[in-house]
Amino acid sequence: MKQLSVIKIGGNVIDNEVALDAFLSDFAQIKLPAILIHGGGKIATRIGDKLGIVSQYVEGRRITDDETIDLVTMVYAGLVNKKIVAALQAKGSNAIGLTGADGNTIPATKRPLKAHPSGDGMIDYGWVGDVKNEQVQTPVVCALIEAGVSPVFAPLTHDGAGHILNTNADTVASVLAVALSKHYEVRLIYCFEKKGVLENVDDENSVITLIDPAKYQQLKGEKKLFAGIIPKIDNAFDAIRAGVKDVVIGDAKDLLTNITEQTTGTTITG
Amino acid sequence: MKQLSVIKIGGNVIDNEVALDAFLSDFAQIKLPAILIHGGGKIATRIGDKLGIVSQYVEGRRITDDETIDLVTMVYAGLVNKKIVAALQAKGSNAIGLTGADGNTIPATKRPLKAHPSGDGMIDYGWVGDVKNEQVQTPVVCALIEAGVSPVFAPLTHDGAGHILNTNADTVASVLAVALSKHYEVRLIYCFEKKGVLENVDDENSVITLIDPAKYQQLKGEKKLFAGIIPKIDNAFDAIRAGVKDVVIGDAKDLLTNITEQTTGTTITG
Repeated sequence: MKQLSVIKIGGNVIDNEVALDAFLSDFAQIKLPAILIHGGGKIATRIGDKLGIVSQYVEGRRITDDETIDLVTMVYAGLVNKKIVAALQAKGSNAIGLTGADGNTIPATKRPLKAHPSGDGMIDYGWVGDVKNEQVQTPVVCALIEAGVSPVFAPLTHDGAGHILNTNADTVASVLAVALSKHYEVRLIYCFEKKGVLENVDDENSVITLIDPAKYQQLKGEKKLFAGIIPKIDNAFDAIRAGVKDVVIGDAKDLLTNITEQTTGTTITG
Repeated sequence: MKQLSVIKIGGNVIDNEVALDAFLSDFAQIKLPAILIHGGGKIATRIGDKLGIVSQYVEGRRITDDETIDLVTMVYAGLVNKKIVAALQAKGSNAIGLTGADGNTIPATKRPLKAHPSGDGMIDYGWVGDVKNEQVQTPVVCALIEAGVSPVFAPLTHDGAGHILNTNADTVASVLAVALSKHYEVRLIYCFEKKGVLENVDDENSVITLIDPAKYQQLKGEKKLFAGIIPKIDNAFDAIRAGVKDVVIGDAKDLLTNITEQTTGTTITG
């Protein structure tokens, strides 16, 4: 099978003009097929503030009400996505900007109401989409890749009933990587604010090069992993069990190294 | 050659939720390949007002400064385009939303400074893109059409140097129609606020069914056409001379009739 890189960049790259430009220069140099998934960054909050849209949070999660879904659709699918596409075109990469609604690529399910942990009423997350691997439709993405085009996804999906939904960018990257594993040997790369998974969170030189299931059990046993990284590693193993070849967690600056076999970040394998 | 409809809807449909929904229901019923190009409507101005972006006009044309190009990129490529795509998906049409930057479909040229007619200095239109038929790149659009997907274009192009440009939606429709004429027998349909070109602008029943070059000379000689329609008809003849089979100007409500041979609007032929 042909190789494919599915690469996710987060807000820390989107929000830094210099870092984003350097990243996109590297992305444009990738010779193998590649897909980019971007987060939104802080710009949605900044524009929302100007528009008088008040961000509401319940249990640390932003509620995507009517105004907020319009805001993130404008900012993620419009401003951020099209700036990335225009920049990649200028760098010689034939990019195409998409959401999960385009080509019906990622039909999702609106998150149901959930009982509030306090027992006091229900939480309505609003226009948030949860998606399972098997919901992803790959024909349009595969046709684009085969035409030499690099799809660039904003973290939005749709409910099939005419509504755009807000979906976590890590999840979008993961479900695309899994679904495309039927057609390609997929490496899923999470660009991260650190050089990889660190044995010591205060020491950037303590990158753990390789995590397989045995090593993971050992690290968890030794309580060496900080709490925030554990769900990311669990998700990586889920993606690998569902067909992804390996997952790399590393710094956006090391993109080109992490595309090749000589990774500088943390490689997670099954 | 296979038939293809290139359909443009303007702000009067975009701004009217009921009319837009009815139009999209009709669009989703089209059996032949079709491309949609939409204008922006008044929503960009409304959101711009909230963001404190002051629209500047010179000689009746809006100046697209840095803030304004970000605004229209958000609104046209984000909000309007993705709402249309999600609505079409719900109606069973596999739509994909694009700008001219996506797939490098419409590389354009930033409009040069122009001497002010008053003789007093130069006019800088800002991030406005002019485009010629031969600049359009059709491979990605053709691949999508052949995959059964309906491209939906926002009226934005790019300069190949990393900038999105604002381009008139009628022009985007026309250059796409001409470029795609190499691969398809193209009917270009302008959905309009009237039922067609009227002999008497106050009488909606005075639609001129067919305009060929001889009829056009006759109508102009009789001074029956109101000034605003003349550039539209001139542009239609330009598109026909460049390869488009015919151009229909009609009401968005009559879309399905205007796709078939039995048009209800005005058909312009060479």
